[in-house]
Amino acid sequence: MSTALDTTPAPSRTLRAVNPLSGEPFGPAFALTTPAELEALVLAAAKVAPEYADTSGEQRGAFLRRAATEIEALATEIVAAAMLETGLSEVRLRGEVGRTANQLRLFAGIAEEGSWVDARLDRPDAARKPAPKPDLRSLLVPLGVVAVFGASNFPLAFSVAGGDTASALAAGCPVVVKAHPAHPSTSALVAEAVQTAARECGLPVGVFSLVYDDGFENGLTLTKHPAVRAVGFTGSRSGGLALIKAAQERAVPIPVYAEMSSVNPVVFTEAALARTDAAQLAASISGSGGQLCTQPGLLFVPEGAAGDRFVSALGQAIAGVAACALLTPGIQAAYRSGTAAYAGHGDVTTVQGQEAENGLYHAQLYQTTLEAFQTAPELTHEVFGPVSLVVRYGAVDPLTATLEGLEGQLTATLHADPAELPGLSGLIAALRERAGRLVLNGFPTGVEVGHAVVHGGPFPATGDGRSTSVGARALLRFSRLLAYQDFPDEALPPALQSGNPLGLLRVQDGEATRDPL
Amino acid sequence: MSTALDTTPAPSRTLRAVNPLSGEPFGPAFALTTPAELEALVLAAAKVAPEYADTSGEQRGAFLRRAATEIEALATEIVAAAMLETGLSEVRLRGEVGRTANQLRLFAGIAEEGSWVDARLDRPDAARKPAPKPDLRSLLVPLGVVAVFGASNFPLAFSVAGGDTASALAAGCPVVVKAHPAHPSTSALVAEAVQTAARECGLPVGVFSLVYDDGFENGLTLTKHPAVRAVGFTGSRSGGLALIKAAQERAVPIPVYAEMSSVNPVVFTEAALARTDAAQLAASISGSGGQLCTQPGLLFVPEGAAGDRFVSALGQAIAGVAACALLTPGIQAAYRSGTAAYAGHGDVTTVQGQEAENGLYHAQLYQTTLEAFQTAPELTHEVFGPVSLVVRYGAVDPLTATLEGLEGQLTATLHADPAELPGLSGLIAALRERAGRLVLNGFPTGVEVGHAVVHGGPFPATGDGRSTSVGARALLRFSRLLAYQDFPDEALPPALQSGNPLGLLRVQDGEATRDPL
Repeated sequence: MSTALDTTPAPSRTLRAVNPLSGEPFGPAFALTTPAELEALVLAAAKVAPEYADTSGEQRGAFLRRAATEIEALATEIVAAAMLETGLSEVRLRGEVGRTANQLRLFAGIAEEGSWVDARLDRPDAARKPAPKPDLRSLLVPLGVVAVFGASNFPLAFSVAGGDTASALAAGCPVVVKAHPAHPSTSALVAEAVQTAARECGLPVGVFSLVYDDGFENGLTLTKHPAVRAVGFTGSRSGGLALIKAAQERAVPIPVYAEMSSVNPVVFTEAALARTDAAQLAASISGSGGQLCTQPGLLFVPEGAAGDRFVSALGQAIAGVAACALLTPGIQAAYRSGTAAYAGHGDVTTVQGQEAENGLYHAQLYQTTLEAFQTAPELTHEVFGPVSLVVRYGAVDPLTATLEGLEGQLTATLHADPAELPGLSGLIAALRERAGRLVLNGFPTGVEVGHAVVHGGPFPATGDGRSTSVGARALLRFSRLLAYQDFPDEALPPALQSGNPLGLLRVQDGEATRDPL
Repeated sequence: MSTALDTTPAPSRTLRAVNPLSGEPFGPAFALTTPAELEALVLAAAKVAPEYADTSGEQRGAFLRRAATEIEALATEIVAAAMLETGLSEVRLRGEVGRTANQLRLFAGIAEEGSWVDARLDRPDAARKPAPKPDLRSLLVPLGVVAVFGASNFPLAFSVAGGDTASALAAGCPVVVKAHPAHPSTSALVAEAVQTAARECGLPVGVFSLVYDDGFENGLTLTKHPAVRAVGFTGSRSGGLALIKAAQERAVPIPVYAEMSSVNPVVFTEAALARTDAAQLAASISGSGGQLCTQPGLLFVPEGAAGDRFVSALGQAIAGVAACALLTPGIQAAYRSGTAAYAGHGDVTTVQGQEAENGLYHAQLYQTTLEAFQTAPELTHEVFGPVSLVVRYGAVDPLTATLEGLEGQLTATLHADPAELPGLSGLIAALRERAGRLVLNGFPTGVEVGHAVVHGGPFPATGDGRSTSVGARALLRFSRLLAYQDFPDEALPPALQSGNPLGLLRVQDGEATRDPL
């Protein structure tokens, strides 16, 4: 029986962006995805998963290339929206559009070339004793639906069509993205681009979708959903750990690739100080408001006059950095409290500690001693934003011991004269043991998109320190091994057929070759 | 102050093997590893981990080849001990010695060849705008100390020097093995062989050690120890899940590669029945007392006269199998209660249900309908031992729906005429989705040791369904990615040096090649 009440829609909850400078909501209201809508989107993704898994590398490549083109076509609107929503600069965001498009094209190329599936074929031997040897062929296959969480600090390259999405789609997995609530308009524009690309490439609806939330509910629901087979996340340690826990408590646990927390230690030898450009280091500390996963938050500088001069020069360079907006009210509050904790710490001195004005935050620099640092674990915690802590050290051995006490990191950097390296093997081993990328005489910010890059590291830098979330190998995260035993050629996927119709580099009886079997 | 009491050693707890037939303890008493001893062994392993990680592939290969030779030299004693401790046959155990040695040599060859480290090099470009492109090179590096749990059902190939140990050592990880308490003498002999090999190859003590326990304590301590970086386990679901939980609750979680539970469904089409040898199937069900991870515990057979004849023939073949010992009192009890549950189930009929005599267990066969199976989840649980449940089905669609309700499996097998395959795509997809290895017109038992094999599968077949515990790719489980940015050649590991001194197959600017950079 119908009544007047039945026709009144429930007041739908909505989400609006917040101006990072004023803290005021602005722009269009985005309806939060309801539980029923979320369920429908995940089921649609799961339904098309087998069909999408069976697409060729060429089809996936065409899709990703088209997505890149569509995003570039919307670049002006995307950058304008992202500037308002994130406070990041136009130069930075233009660069990030390019990075996002490049990344989609990198994964397109890998999908098209196809050898990433690691096809291996072992020939049978019917005459083998005591039992015949079967025909065994195996490859990597897509895991299924992947949930991706947009990151606040990369509204494009680690968000809706960022590295997690691009690598999952290239691997053959449908993707459901949870938009980061700080940039809903940017997310909507990019999602529109990806959906246009899917449509134009004849791919089924469901291969890519976007959901909105203003809290944790939809993200947790995605992570717990039986049809979701993996999660890609870039964000806070607490957020990443909550998702990992939810994923492990499922009836069928799934991998969560969470890129979380890193202070990215940088060690300077005395010899290196003279050759290091303090302005470049200040730029690495403060670029993009210091809101980068690889921002160098911890600098180990020798005691003594040369170190004093270096810290002083760095302080001046930091002082010369223009104040900037920080991404969200939460990040702003954490930056204020984190820097206040440095400023108020009994063993820490302030090199540059200018406070925020008009919603714009200054880069800051603090200093402590190795002895104080060793006994103050709170000083090892990441303060997200444009601030670094300088730790002054005397001898190398206690420095090495201190480095051995650090948690896992995305990067670890050494500034030294190359001739010093053999004498620093213990220190280098300590850095190597707890980092995913070792940098010599450079700066950790600026993560290349390529084949050799590693953007991952021992826990808690990432939840799964074996993997990388940037670069060619990121696809591997969304796949698993599958073997076929004694299947006839026509029933095998093309990657495993004897004639090698895709021309893949395969391993046949242990030898890498592009030849047919 | 010293007293007489101080010189009295605490009564040390010991472990003795149990005769699988009589249930009586026999043979030497092995002292359980004390907490202090365990700590010392783990710390010794951790201490040598960097040195062992830096050994060349040739050094590791020589070590593994020597271990194989030493094991073969002790084969007679090892087989004699294992027969008494496990009740497995001499033929089976002789074969397992060969398999274990082959496996060590397979991983030796992979370590020696060296390309498994997946070296990737991206050339720098100083002229790139807006920022110079760095020199990035990356590879897989060993994780560190690996704890391996010996398995009851493979006293050699999945125990002290089995696949987990061989692959971890080949990857450059020191190994601490927890001996399975059911075969302590076998474990001691194999450990002696590996330790002799290490010594003869000039490797440090600590690269390999063995610990004893009669319960869970030492295994849990190993899994929780901060110096342990990964776990390899083959055993029960409850055991594997307990280790996974312990590993996840650590301050720094670690991967647990647990191979746990699988009923290995086998589907027969009507056309296939005539070409299937019931005796071969009975051998696959009952070989090694059915105590194989890939034992076919669930058989889907068409309804009707041809199916009736097949089940009858299979029942006769099962009846003709000699009764055999089962490995441990625990496995014996579980087999008795599991088969009794089949026999007492209202919807299950007994095809062959002969009870144990004189400690020897008969292979058994039970039968139910697809309809009953669909509503009785307890019938999907693994009963470890020489028993299978036949499920009679009518049409393919409800069968496919039933298969879609199964948990993850190590293997799934289809017996069909090759001409039928195109019409069975939905059914094959259902099997493919939940198995690590698909077998056509063969039997799932008999896991090849080679390059293409996959011995792993979606949860709960393994804790991490992305990996394999057998075959070349098993090394990858014990490694993580590490990148070097802008390091000079002489400070790089040989695998990443420009001249490619090891002659590896590497990826250079995205192209696979053995050329120098």
